Amino acid sequence: MQRIAVVGGGVIGLATAWRVAATGRRVTVIDPTPVRGGGSWVAAGMLAPVTEAWLGEEHVLAFGAESLARWPGFAADLADPPGLRREGTLALALDAADAEDQRRLADFLSSLGREVRRLTARQVRELEPGTSPVRSGLLVPGDLSVDSRRLLRSLAAQATAEGVGFHTGRAVSVRDGGVELADGSTVECDEAVIAAGAWSRALHPALDTLVRPVKGEVLRLRSRPSALPPPTRTLRAHVESRPVYLVPRDGGELVVGATQHEVGHDTEVTVAGVRDLLTDAERVLPGVREYALVEAVAGLRAGSPDNLPLLGRLGPGVLVATGHHRNGVLMAPVTADAVVALLRGDTPPDHVLAAAPSRFPGAT
Amino acid sequence: MQRIAVVGGGVIGLATAWRVAATGRRVTVIDPTPVRGGGSWVAAGMLAPVTEAWLGEEHVLAFGAESLARWPGFAADLADPPGLRREGTLALALDAADAEDQRRLADFLSSLGREVRRLTARQVRELEPGTSPVRSGLLVPGDLSVDSRRLLRSLAAQATAEGVGFHTGRAVSVRDGGVELADGSTVECDEAVIAAGAWSRALHPALDTLVRPVKGEVLRLRSRPSALPPPTRTLRAHVESRPVYLVPRDGGELVVGATQHEVGHDTEVTVAGVRDLLTDAERVLPGVREYALVEAVAGLRAGSPDNLPLLGRLGPGVLVATGHHRNGVLMAPVTADAVVALLRGDTPPDHVLAAAPSRFPGAT
Repeated sequence: MQRIAVVGGGVIGLATAWRVAATGRRVTVIDPTPVRGGGSWVAAGMLAPVTEAWLGEEHVLAFGAESLARWPGFAADLADPPGLRREGTLALALDAADAEDQRRLADFLSSLGREVRRLTARQVRELEPGTSPVRSGLLVPGDLSVDSRRLLRSLAAQATAEGVGFHTGRAVSVRDGGVELADGSTVECDEAVIAAGAWSRALHPALDTLVRPVKGEVLRLRSRPSALPPPTRTLRAHVESRPVYLVPRDGGELVVGATQHEVGHDTEVTVAGVRDLLTDAERVLPGVREYALVEAVAGLRAGSPDNLPLLGRLGPGVLVATGHHRNGVLMAPVTADAVVALLRGDTPPDHVLAAAPSRFPGAT
Repeated sequence: MQRIAVVGGGVIGLATAWRVAATGRRVTVIDPTPVRGGGSWVAAGMLAPVTEAWLGEEHVLAFGAESLARWPGFAADLADPPGLRREGTLALALDAADAEDQRRLADFLSSLGREVRRLTARQVRELEPGTSPVRSGLLVPGDLSVDSRRLLRSLAAQATAEGVGFHTGRAVSVRDGGVELADGSTVECDEAVIAAGAWSRALHPALDTLVRPVKGEVLRLRSRPSALPPPTRTLRAHVESRPVYLVPRDGGELVVGATQHEVGHDTEVTVAGVRDLLTDAERVLPGVREYALVEAVAGLRAGSPDNLPLLGRLGPGVLVATGHHRNGVLMAPVTADAVVALLRGDTPPDHVLAAAPSRFPGAT
């Protein structure tokens, strides 16, 4: 039986391990703190390729749109439901400049055939009465969201049920034939998959210049009996040019994110980061001032040079599946399926080929 | 041997248990979560009767000043040092109205013979270069501060070494001869001391209208290598009429407090509370924006009708030592000594007599 080592127990590593194990291979996940240790634990869980789309990032949008389409089926395959929500995203324009940006984004997305709907200030208030006065809104009914922590636990349980083993060593290097650990031992394997997010960089020379940590701070709020209820949809806006999103969860939780700082491997929550998130969330939804602040936490996204993932073969016996930046949870289903295809020797679809590390000279 | 039950394992209960046990009595502390469970765990640890003084609260000031004088000896008696700091308090006037208030407070305190020193804006900057521009300052060299968490652990260890026993039941009622617990059992004793802070109210009918919970939110920040170092002294100021204090601890920690809300037994940290503390701390010491936010936590102070503690006999076999409001850590030494005196049948000193619950009709 072919032995596969997956380095990283976040959303990409766990989804990949599960899907690969289901093809009859023997899979080991290597991670000192699977589920909780990485950026996935901090993720807000937006499955929102459209409102995350930036002009000029059509490849990212295509990859994300394909993954969004697979999400309902992916979630249905999980024995423990991950809290999928289907209410969509409502982007808010708080001033005239935002409204103009929103108009351009709507035109761009419509030209790509995506379903978006422009709303007046009044229509926004009717849909989400707790929001601040706005200039206009952009409704994206197709966006989903998922409770990323429930998802991680569910994926770990699913992988375990599929026979995946867990090794809590810390990988320091990945090469053809094995993964070397910090204690000097080696996990031997026929193929290794590097799915260690921001930590992937140190595991293989080809990744050194391609993966960089992008710190994000996220708050978890919870509605209280005296406060207004949370919104129904994911809300997005810009406050003083800072993007902010508010993602409702079942049970009155509201996740607020996210700062973006390129400051190395720093996962401390800062005063300025939390102050900005609190201020911006209040600016969008004034009622959150009465909410409980349950948690303030920071994580590291894995950035790539062009915001597309690094997904493909680095060399004999070594695959990579990282660099998902803001979109790791969204892109997990396509990424896991792509690794299955690559292990089989199948040619992946175009949106996956676009993410091959060979697009960067010297990466393979 | 006389059996004493102390209900409450916070700073008052632990200090009292230790000091009473040292007189040869057999002491049991009753608390489901001693050390960590109550308001003391959240306390900033300012020992600052002067800058906490409000005009018209001379009794509180006298009690606090007496306790401050005993603090160095009290700390020296502890085997594990509680992190006593002697750098004093610097109150900052951020605008003209604050400066005028500060002048009145300085005159009031000088008239009582307290050592205070008015500083110009330039003198403030020389002493604490990280502060915002101010109108004036008031230096109180005699104020102390203590690391309240180190203190609580030290007191628990000291009490244990002195033979104090701990019972992790939850008290529901205190009467002559015993303390009744939630599980229906009774801890029998010759004298019981109610030192359960905001939870004291439910333990004895006389306290029902005299003790009320006053919620306080506190942040723990920590300086980072890239940030300015913390101040040397405790800093105090008013921002938009809200009092704020920043208490430095050894090791780069900075405690920021505190909100005051009379909202019942609510210990959830709110968005508005944290946002105010972050904003106000930045207004006083801009460099904190780069600090790590280590913890945001809420606790309950035990308020009394006149801000003096409730310290004395409620009836045969029942003493009370609570209602210390913002000053529990400061007043612990005098309170513990007073309970020892009351148990011996000695007449307490005037500042303790002023805190007797008999000052309220119907309390005894």
